[in-house]
Amino acid sequence: MATSLPDAAAGGFDRLYGGVLTGVAAGLVTAEVPVREALLGPSGELHGGVYAALAESAALAGTRCAIPAGDGSSARAIANVLSLLAPVLQGAVHARAVRRHAGRTTSVWEVEMTDDGGRRCAVARVTVAVGD
Amino acid sequence: MATSLPDAAAGGFDRLYGGVLTGVAAGLVTAEVPVREALLGPSGELHGGVYAALAESAALAGTRCAIPAGDGSSARAIANVLSLLAPVLQGAVHARAVRRHAGRTTSVWEVEMTDDGGRRCAVARVTVAVGD
Amino acid sequence: MATSLPDAAAGGFDRLYGGVLTGVAAGLVTAEVPVREALLGPSGELHGGVYAALAESAALAGTRCAIPAGDGSSARAIANVLSLLAPVLQGAVHARAVRRHAGRTTSVWEVEMTDDGGRRCAVARVTVAVGD
Amino acid sequence: MATSLPDAAAGGFDRLYGGVLTGVAAGLVTAEVPVREALLGPSGELHGGVYAALAESAALAGTRCAIPAGDGSSARAIANVLSLLAPVLQGAVHARAVRRHAGRTTSVWEVEMTDDGGRRCAVARVTVAVGD
Repeated sequence: MATSLPDAAAGGFDRLYGGVLTGVAAGLVTAEVPVREALLGPSGELHGGVYAALAESAALAGTRCAIPAGDGSSARAIANVLSLLAPVLQGAVHARAVRRHAGRTTSVWEVEMTDDGGRRCAVARVTVAVGD
Repeated sequence: MATSLPDAAAGGFDRLYGGVLTGVAAGLVTAEVPVREALLGPSGELHGGVYAALAESAALAGTRCAIPAGDGSSARAIANVLSLLAPVLQGAVHARAVRRHAGRTTSVWEVEMTDDGGRRCAVARVTVAVGD
Repeated sequence: MATSLPDAAAGGFDRLYGGVLTGVAAGLVTAEVPVREALLGPSGELHGGVYAALAESAALAGTRCAIPAGDGSSARAIANVLSLLAPVLQGAVHARAVRRHAGRTTSVWEVEMTDDGGRRCAVARVTVAVGD
Repeated sequence: MATSLPDAAAGGFDRLYGGVLTGVAAGLVTAEVPVREALLGPSGELHGGVYAALAESAALAGTRCAIPAGDGSSARAIANVLSLLAPVLQGAVHARAVRRHAGRTTSVWEVEMTDDGGRRCAVARVTVAVGD
């Protein structure tokens, strides 16, 4: 069953655009967003800001779940590099975020996003700073 | 007076998150978004997806206004490279998009985003493909 | 047996820094560069420009080999997004470029670069424009 | 008078490709590289790796000069985002790196590169981690 992303529970941006977390494991996060009219850009396809948001939220969720509770460390996205490959007009977008680097102060995630037919529609690389 | 971004008028994503266009001139677009609770990420600061959306919308608006009416050409963002510099928790974010390249098939925009105090909080580089 | 990258044969930049092509298949290119003192940056580790060069050359080689001979199309890199993950001081860097998108006008490659021990040291995403 | 970039003095990569530092001030660095056959890519224009190298070296030089001597802090590039705008075949490439962000742990530089005629040929954004 899909769980809301942390923000969504708190009434934040994930709730507004509708991003939901569908799985979290060590170094791997899946999430998705149903496409709806309110998420489209001027040409009638999913706005790039939605992909960017979904990718960042997935990378943050994956980084946070690796921080021990009570550790006091925080995680903040510092960079998000998005390539838009193919337009999506309906259905849902499915993100698969894989951690490629877990350093002392940063972690780096590659996020592939596909449509319902499995076609790759966007890729993002998100860098998260971990600090205290 | 602030004008809604094209999407906003049409009920699209700009309307959902609240991005508004405040100026369009040759090679320069300004836009802004008021910060509100529904746009925050898990740490209580503006979600990076909002900056990404505002930057893309500004770059697209600037590219589209340079296409002669009836030309039939379309403009689509193909890349959006965002660096998040400083957190914003309240007020508004102001974007200033400057066109740095206007090629035959692509245009490239640098977008600086600042808070109400003029502090730079994010920068983005958006590449728009122009085709027909 | 390692084959020089196309530039190397022609006396271009790949030859200068020492990038060699080790494999080309549909949508997959491997290449490598031996680390030597002339490629180091001020802190004694491989300069980031070397990773950028290797990634671009691999992506270009992969794109070019998919263009039918005599087609007259050209391929040019238009964007290269590099994240530097871990320093490399000696040995060689091995690149594995995988095509993630093959559109009508652009192709997008993800390039992973590892050291001799298999540790991931850099990742790049290269966008190549294909035109005529 | 042009001064070699720090690497060049030490026989590193800047010396190999020919990057030279032409000015350093607080938050602003200028550098350049003469174009020569050994720096070209397969299509006869300056290889993208050269722009990437020049941008990184300029950003590093600017970051390092702001670290007090004896402080013991180091500076390492962690990301370099390059857009290639127009081909350069001869003359020199001139880089102007402006610091856009100077945080506690990172600094961010925008680097514009132009040809001898002042035409913008590439832009890069380099993120440098400052640590100790």
